[in-house]
Amino acid sequence: MATGRFITLEGGEGAGKSTQIRLLAQALADRGVEVVTTREPGGGSDGAASIRGLLVAGDTPWQRLTEALLHNAARHENVEALVRPALSRGAWVLCDRYVDSTVAYQGYAMGVDRGILAELHRLSTGNLMPDLTLVLDLPVEAGLARAGTRPGLEDRYERMGMAFHERLRRGFLDIAAHDPGRCAIIDATGDIATVHARLLDAVAGRLLRGAA
Amino acid sequence: MATGRFITLEGGEGAGKSTQIRLLAQALADRGVEVVTTREPGGGSDGAASIRGLLVAGDTPWQRLTEALLHNAARHENVEALVRPALSRGAWVLCDRYVDSTVAYQGYAMGVDRGILAELHRLSTGNLMPDLTLVLDLPVEAGLARAGTRPGLEDRYERMGMAFHERLRRGFLDIAAHDPGRCAIIDATGDIATVHARLLDAVAGRLLRGAA
Repeated sequence: MATGRFITLEGGEGAGKSTQIRLLAQALADRGVEVVTTREPGGGSDGAASIRGLLVAGDTPWQRLTEALLHNAARHENVEALVRPALSRGAWVLCDRYVDSTVAYQGYAMGVDRGILAELHRLSTGNLMPDLTLVLDLPVEAGLARAGTRPGLEDRYERMGMAFHERLRRGFLDIAAHDPGRCAIIDATGDIATVHARLLDAVAGRLLRGAA
Repeated sequence: MATGRFITLEGGEGAGKSTQIRLLAQALADRGVEVVTTREPGGGSDGAASIRGLLVAGDTPWQRLTEALLHNAARHENVEALVRPALSRGAWVLCDRYVDSTVAYQGYAMGVDRGILAELHRLSTGNLMPDLTLVLDLPVEAGLARAGTRPGLEDRYERMGMAFHERLRRGFLDIAAHDPGRCAIIDATGDIATVHARLLDAVAGRLLRGAA
């Protein structure tokens, strides 16, 4: 049975994930790989998109664990409807945010018990973990400056304070430090082409040998 | 520290839960008990209500476990924002649907692994269980006939087939049979006053001795 590769992009606000995932998908497609891109929350199904709508509106304050449960609900949709079927037919799946975002945002930055988050991930996805996680790292001020220039600011996390975003960055770096076999930290400073080259190096070094 | 009592009402469509919970609340208040009523999904906070809105709209088909995760998200809101604070100050909480509805609907009727549902309940609520669960039991056809006369039909479960509702009824009865110390099966046939009297008997027999 063919089995594809599951790559996730992670990082704080303004790290350039959506731009970089598009470039990475194109670069892999140019090498003959079938690539499927998705994002969380909201990718994979209309049901996931409706949960994203609720999370993005964010006009009602939830308990912190409630938010983690909603992200796990959206993640279950994406994994069952899109990620597993694509991997099964041999495609490579690139996902903009996955479990590490829940651990970094709801765990490290907001204080939900990380053991509970790990158990939720196991129940929601059968503990499906990426083959490679690219953590786009950027100083907090640079990321927020980039995010602030976006039209249609939709992410209410961007409105939280500096201390929140520092905890978030430290969280992503800590996750990567504890799982170096899966995670690569990518310096996200510099122009788009430079960062793209760094990502491609990481993918090539870890996954592309032997790929079609 | 004062500790109230936590009573849940469960049952399929048209069992009369919302009418009976109102009468039971009044009867307990007449005996000098502070009573708080709530319902799931949606009770406890604006955040829970927004999750209810998503579930009730139901215009997007979710994976079965997704729906269970959404109910657990709403439940966490209700437990943290309303149920635990009320119990802590000594109030009695009457809740229209709780964990048994998730086990009956998503587990027995829709086929989600009940072990997973039990683990989710532990993570979402710290395994908070009711002191007493009143299971309103009614033949499926009678319940659906009652439900069908409601204006503003909002519950899409009512549109599911007979076999679904039979599994649901059997699920509730099975839950009660396995936890007789917590659950009382109430015959919900008959007029409102008759059913109310049965509920009050069950509460009196199990909880009211020694109550204020």
